Order: sequence, then structure tokens, then C-alpha cells
Amino acid sequence: MSFTLHGLAVSGGIAIGHAHLISHAVLEVTQYQLRERDVADELVRLDAALAVVAGDLEALREEANNAGSPGELSAFIDLHAMLLADPDLTAGVRSLIRDGRCNAEWALVQQMQEVIAQFDAFEDAYLRERKHDISQVVERVLRVLQNKPRKITSRRAMVDAELILVANDLSPADTLQFKNLKVGGFVTDMGGATSHTAIVARSLAIPAVVGMQNARPLIQDNDLLILDGTRGMLIVDPDARVLEEYRLKKAGIELERNKRMRLKTARAATLDGELIELHANIELPQDAERAKEVGADGIGLFRSEFLFMNRDELPDEDEQYEAYRHVVKAFAGKPVTIRTLDIGADKEARALRSRAGDHLSPNPALGLRAIRFCLTEPQIFLTQLRAILRASQHGRVRLLIPMLAHAQEIVQALALIEEAKAQLRESRHKFSADIEVGGMIEIPAAALVLGPFLRHLDFLSIGTNDLIQYTLAIDRSDGAVAHLYDPLHPAVLQLILKTLHAGARAGLPVSVCGEMAGDPKLTRLLLGMGLRQFSMHSAQLLEVKQQVLKADTALLAPQVSRLLKVDEPEKIAELMARL
Amino acid sequence: MSFTLHGLAVSGGIAIGHAHLISHAVLEVTQYQLRERDVADELVRLDAALAVVAGDLEALREEANNAGSPGELSAFIDLHAMLLADPDLTAGVRSLIRDGRCNAEWALVQQMQEVIAQFDAFEDAYLRERKHDISQVVERVLRVLQNKPRKITSRRAMVDAELILVANDLSPADTLQFKNLKVGGFVTDMGGATSHTAIVARSLAIPAVVGMQNARPLIQDNDLLILDGTRGMLIVDPDARVLEEYRLKKAGIELERNKRMRLKTARAATLDGELIELHANIELPQDAERAKEVGADGIGLFRSEFLFMNRDELPDEDEQYEAYRHVVKAFAGKPVTIRTLDIGADKEARALRSRAGDHLSPNPALGLRAIRFCLTEPQIFLTQLRAILRASQHGRVRLLIPMLAHAQEIVQALALIEEAKAQLRESRHKFSADIEVGGMIEIPAAALVLGPFLRHLDFLSIGTNDLIQYTLAIDRSDGAVAHLYDPLHPAVLQLILKTLHAGARAGLPVSVCGEMAGDPKLTRLLLGMGLRQFSMHSAQLLEVKQQVLKADTALLAPQVSRLLKVDEPEKIAELMARL
Repeated sequence: MSFTLHGLAVSGGIAIGHAHLISHAVLEVTQYQLRERDVADELVRLDAALAVVAGDLEALREEANNAGSPGELSAFIDLHAMLLADPDLTAGVRSLIRDGRCNAEWALVQQMQEVIAQFDAFEDAYLRERKHDISQVVERVLRVLQNKPRKITSRRAMVDAELILVANDLSPADTLQFKNLKVGGFVTDMGGATSHTAIVARSLAIPAVVGMQNARPLIQDNDLLILDGTRGMLIVDPDARVLEEYRLKKAGIELERNKRMRLKTARAATLDGELIELHANIELPQDAERAKEVGADGIGLFRSEFLFMNRDELPDEDEQYEAYRHVVKAFAGKPVTIRTLDIGADKEARALRSRAGDHLSPNPALGLRAIRFCLTEPQIFLTQLRAILRASQHGRVRLLIPMLAHAQEIVQALALIEEAKAQLRESRHKFSADIEVGGMIEIPAAALVLGPFLRHLDFLSIGTNDLIQYTLAIDRSDGAVAHLYDPLHPAVLQLILKTLHAGARAGLPVSVCGEMAGDPKLTRLLLGMGLRQFSMHSAQLLEVKQQVLKADTALLAPQVSRLLKVDEPEKIAELMARL
Repeated sequence: MSFTLHGLAVSGGIAIGHAHLISHAVLEVTQYQLRERDVADELVRLDAALAVVAGDLEALREEANNAGSPGELSAFIDLHAMLLADPDLTAGVRSLIRDGRCNAEWALVQQMQEVIAQFDAFEDAYLRERKHDISQVVERVLRVLQNKPRKITSRRAMVDAELILVANDLSPADTLQFKNLKVGGFVTDMGGATSHTAIVARSLAIPAVVGMQNARPLIQDNDLLILDGTRGMLIVDPDARVLEEYRLKKAGIELERNKRMRLKTARAATLDGELIELHANIELPQDAERAKEVGADGIGLFRSEFLFMNRDELPDEDEQYEAYRHVVKAFAGKPVTIRTLDIGADKEARALRSRAGDHLSPNPALGLRAIRFCLTEPQIFLTQLRAILRASQHGRVRLLIPMLAHAQEIVQALALIEEAKAQLRESRHKFSADIEVGGMIEIPAAALVLGPFLRHLDFLSIGTNDLIQYTLAIDRSDGAVAHLYDPLHPAVLQLILKTLHAGARAGLPVSVCGEMAGDPKLTRLLLGMGLRQFSMHSAQLLEVKQQVLKADTALLAPQVSRLLKVDEPEKIAELMARL
């Protein structure tokens, strides 16, 4: 029976393929005490179940080999078979049954937890993550013991169609281990826009929907799925008509994408000859390759905080330096704008959270984040500044400070940059002394009072996501009010226009790096407002370039200026449609 | 030994008095099994302890009577003596000791929990709250059983000095029961700015500090305390020098207050003859009396949400009508501005939270609150609107809508007001058909795009607390960033000025009802900006009037206009000092 589930759209596109369940389910089993005389039978029951699972794994391996699956798959099946035979696991279970008179299911889960605890102690992240394989094997045995359907995954699906990974949550190891398989999309029940799944999906440019709540328990291995990463929808077991519709849609998207790829080397000039800079936003160093593929004029926003997420230790100066250098080298000579840490004590940033003493913000968006956090943790900030400065010797690095609102914060941040430079001189590290420093305009107060920004900084970047959020007092990640998040609210347009004008008057470059810049429906509006520098996710760059090539700023400017005088939403929509 | 504790300042002023501990501590006792032969001894031990406590209570009552304490105190002592003798409690304890071979302490706590559960089932809130008396009595007995110091409160303190109540948390019943005693201040370990304690303290105009975390366990009954409700400080066992200093300070405050009381009937006119309206903000209907005492020109802000807090059921139309009517009648003929619900699914609003399906906002301040909540719960909103409209027949009621940002929200709110009127006509209830409807300006988008407000509404009220919060992206309740909350940020002043000017041009009255209006240090600034209508807590009204009487708006206007052109905080501070 076909049904549709909804979640948070975190990486766009369409995938059609079979479900591959990643199992981290809590293994809940009942415990009961055996009579002494039943102990022997229980041991036989355990051995029988182990044998069944060993046979299943053997069958799987043969199937995989015959079908010519990738080598990794066989390797994982081998690993599971090995774990199943591991005396650490089975001997422990046996003694719990024999000496503790426990039932086999309960003994199995107890022993599994003990072994997992040992894995948790490993230094090596890969080994540590192998605990998931243990729980997968144990789950197989439990299913046999409990006479549940065994669902021997027909891995044949892997070779003739895309796989869509469905999990409660995906760990870094999960996503990495499947990176080389033919994965069409990710679906998770947990997670938000900055979860590891979301980041990896965007950097691989494959669709992902997270925060599904209930997908994993409702989906069976091998179910046919349509994943719409743009609309945040998952259609399970679609009927033929829907399937055909989505196949056409997917083919259309791919055709368009291929056509756009031809624009890669075209100059982004409007019909009236205005040259527009189109930069890429990246989250991880390796995203630089994708940005180059679409012909980005530079990196307009390197969200450095992603280096700090999903890990227990802060990255040190050298690790950060290597990451920044990688991107700077990849974009030899073109500008690379590195934004300093834009998080606080977030749930994704364990390493920072402990620093903040587990301080709980009643409203994290209005709390100790970004530059506010960095100014209270100057050592973390100085380390990052030194790493960015050192990377500046390899190309054209621009340093971008997020969430400034007070003149004093600008002064303090600049003083710390000078301190970092002095430290590098001391330690005889090279850096570019005239590195440009810019500020994000993303708090209403910043857009309203630009004086200190214009006096102290070299460039501005408008972060529309947060600017809209604060100007309207709407958290767009909050489903209850997300419908009120409106980039076209005249107050938002006013603040963007004000910033563009002030920058132009003062001779300071101003870019827009929020999602508005990557929305091709808004390209003409922003061009008409005077924006000449856009920064967006690589996946959107060529579509925006298409819009630029068709636009005439001389015609757009007066139309947009009329639009900006209107304060009625209906009129704005009407004028937008006519742009 | 003297020591100082810090908490959240929620009601200003100074109290000097003795600690009166309100006990809700969890009574943790160890359990042990008695030998059969020890059961009889244990029963004797229990009876002895009960007798000691009965004696203590008797002594207390005599002391109270001799000292001429208020009748309520004797009544409470009687109640405790009654509970002590209650067979429900003692018979149960006895049978637990006898049949269960439990130790007396444990039996006592078990039985207490059972009796408390019975009290919890009472319909009547007063009776329900009596469970605290039970635990107080049980604690007395436990102290005797455990040979702990008995701390028979010397109630004599009550008559010759103020009492300062110290509690983990105060329930409505706690605060009401002490309302008629000579209570100088409240101190609680739990609670925030909108806790019941805070509300009651402000309406009684006595100092209170909440969110102390650890005050109760550190303070002993009868300790001498200095409570500074303005600075959020509690000094325990102060030395003579500090005590003298605070006595002088307190006397100074009282002298000033008495002097100001003479201003009550004075016209609030500036030196150049501008008449300024000074209105009061209230939270509970009974606050109207205090507002009249200080000669308020009306109620500028009735925060109706306080009727919805700290309770399990929503107030129905009649209950709300009575509350509004009380205030309207008290201010016969003078304007009474009732703001519709300004909360969402908050922790203080249990009755609403269940409505919102326990939806969790990651950032409540940017979530489903105020008018946003009301538009998704039209039945709750219509009930309140009908109650307000019905109250309008008794005087001059103005209806104020909080947190508007989108033109569409204004239109929807007005449509619901019309619907409420139609419903009242249907049910033949009287109301004033030409009731004025206003909007709060407290979201940056509202101040930036005033057109829809000016076209659709009759008056505006600037809520500076939220306006500052969103304009600066600072949650002032978050200690980690509260220092960045700055009413003098030029962006904030710009938005206030813009609203005042737009209102003046359109002929719409504009008031300020946030804390800025009640801060006498800002009165001259606001007068210079053109504000003629202030609304503040009653406790601040006469101090602001003092400032008004000394001000000359003709002189202030050009000075303030110079100040508003400046964007450097130091310059602003300098010009402020010279105003």
C-alpha cells in the first residue's frame, strides 16, 4: 500500500530506489528466569539461532558475489559473520544462560551492551563505529529467536537501482561507509538542517530528508521509495502512475542540469553588460571541488563551523589550517571567504558545548552564538584566526565575522585579529598582512546602523536567513510558525536595500550569501535592487547564472524601485510576477 | 557568618527582616526493616515524637497570642496541630510500623504521600494546597525522630520586624496565605520573571528575588536577611555596618516614596506646558487599586495573559469579563488598554500548553506566541475578545493586539473582532461598538513597515522589551548575553523614533509601554523624541512624573535630535549625560 511521509527538506533533488534500512533500533526484550532443567534447552535454542543467521549471511555473500556487488558489501557481510562467531559475544551469552539462568534473548542483549561498551573505548573512530555492526548482527539473531520475519535483504537491489538509506539517524561512519556505494538518497527520523546527514547529502548533491520521526519503523527493507528532497517528501511503494510521473520529473531535472552544465564557463553578464559575481557557499573543504565544477567565481561563504561539528575535540590550528589551505589552493587566486565560527553551545557542537559549561539558552537563536561566543572564548577564536591567516599566504583569503550588532564587537574582533597576527609573527608563520575583513549583516540592528561597519570593515555580506528570522521574529525551523517566514516582507527588502545602498556609497563590496541569493525566482529582484555579488550553494549556481544571462538591470531597476515602495503583500506578489 | 546570594531581580525595593522558611523539601529518609521484637519500641518512639511536636505547636500558639500576632498565624498553628492529631495520618503510620515492620521515619513519609495524594484530588484549590501544611507538620516530627535541631520558629519576629519568606518555590496558596501578614519580601530558589511569586510581589510592591538556586538549603529560620529586590541580592546575616547602610538606604527610599506620593494629584505637565499622559501597566485585576493610588491617567497595558498562568483550566468568558470589568469600573471613564493574550505554549501557561499539543519551540521567543497563537486558536481568542468587548460597556476600553508583523495578521485579527461582536449581538450582550483597536509595535518588521498598522488601527503601543530583543537578537533573560541588551542602541532609538513620527503624521496616538517608559533615566530622552504617552508599572509612575515636571520638551527636542544622529555608543552616552 502506497503512503507518503513528510520531513525536513535538507538536500534537494529526486531519488527513486529501494529502501536499505540501517538498524540502530533499541533492542528491547523481556527477561525471564529459566528453570534449572530448561537451561540446556535454551543453549540449544541459542545455537540453532546462531546457525540460522550464519547460514543467512553465507547466502547473502554468495548472492552478492554472483550479482557482482561492490567489494565493500562482501566485506561487511564477512565482518558480520566474524562478529557472530566471536567468542567474546557468544561465550558471554552462554555463561549468562548457564550461570544466570537468563533467557537467550535477554542474555544476548546484555552481552551485546558489554561488547559495545568495549568498542566505545576504542580511540579509532572507525572501530568505535563498528558497534552498529554488532547490534545489526544481534538483531538478526533476536529475530530468529523471536520467530520474527527474517528479512534477508536481497542485495540485488544494490546493483540495478539506487539505494535509499533509511535510518533512525546516520553516524559519520554510516554515511562514509556508504559513500562509495550507489546511494541515491538519505532518509532519517532524527536530525535537523545541520545534522551530519544533511551536510554529507548536500556535499554529495544527493537528496535527503531528515526529521521524519517515524519513517524507519514504517518502512521495510527493499520497499520501493520515491524521495523528493526538495519538498521533504517520501513516497513509499508508489503506484505506477506516481512512479512514472516522478521518473519523468527526475529525467527532466537531469536534462536541465546537463544543459546548465554548458553554462559553466560562460561569463555571468546581464543583457546590459553588468558583470555579476557568482560565488559558492561551502561547508566542508571537499565541497570546493563541486564549486569549481560549476565554475564559481570564488567561495563567498565557507561555513567553518562544520569543521567543529559532530566531534568531541576541537580541531587544532594545524587541522583547521589544512582545511582552509585545501580550499584556498583549489581556488588559486580567486577569493575564498572564510566565516569564523557561527555556532555557540549547540547540540551539534559537542566540543564547544562543554566549553560553554552546558549553558542552556532559553532561545539559542538569541543567545551566546557566533562572534558573541568567540569573544567570550578568545583562545578558540585566536586559534581559528591564526589558521585562517596562515592559509592566506596561499591565495586570496577574506575573513568574515558573523552576528555583529554592536560597534564594540567590531572593535574587539579586529583587536583579536591583530593579536593573532602578532602571534604568527612571533612564531614566524607566513600570512598575508593585508587580509580583508568583512562583517555579516544578519541582525536588524546591523542593517539599521551601518556606520561602524562601513568605518571599520572591508566588505559586507548579508545573511538573509538570519536577517529575515530576526526582522520578523520567526524561527523558520519551527514548524508552527515557518509559514510566516517571508523573504518578501517589505521590512526585509528595506534592510537589504539599505545595506546595498550604504555599501555602494561607501565603496564597500556587499554580497548576499543567504538562501535568497540561491533562489532563481529572486535573482531578478536582487539584481534590480543593485546586488552584483551572489553567493549560494554550488547546486544552485548555474540556475542563477541562467537568470542573470536573461536579465537587464537597466530595465529591472525602476521596476524594483516601484515594488519597494509597496507595503501590501498582494501588490508585492503582483509586481514580482511582472518583473 | 555573613554571605551574599544572587538571583533574578523581579520586584524592586529593599526589605530587612528575618527569614521564614517555607518547607517543601523532599523528605528523604532511609528505610529499614524492624525486628519483630523492636516494633513496640518503635511505636513508643513515634508517639514520643508526636507529643514533642504537639508541645512545640502549643508553645508557639501561646507565644503568638501573647505577642498579639495576627489571627491567621494562630489559625495556621491550629491547623498544624489538627493535622498532627489526624488519625488518617497517624493511624496509617502506626499500621505500617506494626504490620510492615517499617521504621517510623519511613512509615511517616509513606503515609504522608498517601494523604497528600488524597488532597491532590480536591476540587478546591485552597484545600489542595493544604498538602504543604501536611509536609510541614511531618517535617517537624521527622526532625524530632532524627534528633535534628527543632528550630521552633520564634514567631515573635513576626511582630517586631518584617518577615522575608524563603522557599524553594511559592504556590499561589503560599503567597495568598501570607498576604495579610507583615511580609517584607519573597525569596525563592525556582521561578522566573513571570512566576507567580514575581507577579504577586510586583502587585504587592514588595521586593522579590527568584531563581536563587540554593538559598533555601543555606538559610535557617530566623536568620537576619537583607533583600535587595532591585539588584537581585540577598545578604544573609549582615554585619552591623552593612545593616546600617541598608537601613539608611531603605529609609531614603521610603522618604523619597513618601515625598513623591504628594505628586499623585499633580498634572503631569512639562515646564513648557506639554501635557504628558502617564498610564499604568498591570498584570492582575487587583493591581488597578495600586494604579489609582499613584494617580495613573489610565491603564496603558493590562497584561491579560496573567489570568491564564499557573492554572490547569482556561478562564472562561465570564471569569475574564469579571476581571476586565473590575479594572474598567475602578478606572471609570479613563482608558483601560487590555492586551490580548501575549503567550504561547509557555511553561507558565499549562492550560495553553496542552492546547498546543505540547509543541516544543526551539526558540520560543521566535515561535507560536501572542497573536500568532490566537489566530491558530480562534476559539480561545474569540472567548477573550467577547469578554473584553462586554467589559467595554462599563467605561473606555481599548483593545491591544500583541506581536503583529504581517499585514495579513492585522486583517485576520480585525475580522475575528468583528466576529466576536456579531456573536455578542446574537446573544444580546451589551458592548461598546466603537471600541478602539491598537497594535503593539514590538517586532522590527512592524516598526519598519507601519503602513498596514496606520491604515487599519486606532492606536499604537511600542513594546520596547521585545523590540530591543529582536532588533539586537538578544534574549535578555539569557544571562550569557544579557549584557548586550541595550535600550540605547541607535537601531532601537531609530525604530522608536520612526514609529512616533509615523503615528504623529497619521494622527494616531502612540505610547511606549515597555520598561523604557518606566525608567526615569530615559524620560527626558523619550520626551525629546516626541513621546507624550508613557505606560509603566505603578511603582515607577511618580518617579517618572517627577522627571516630566522638570523637563522642557522645547529644549530637549533639538538635543535629542542631535543624539539620534550619532552611532557611536560612547558619544550617545555622553550626549545622554548632558540631556
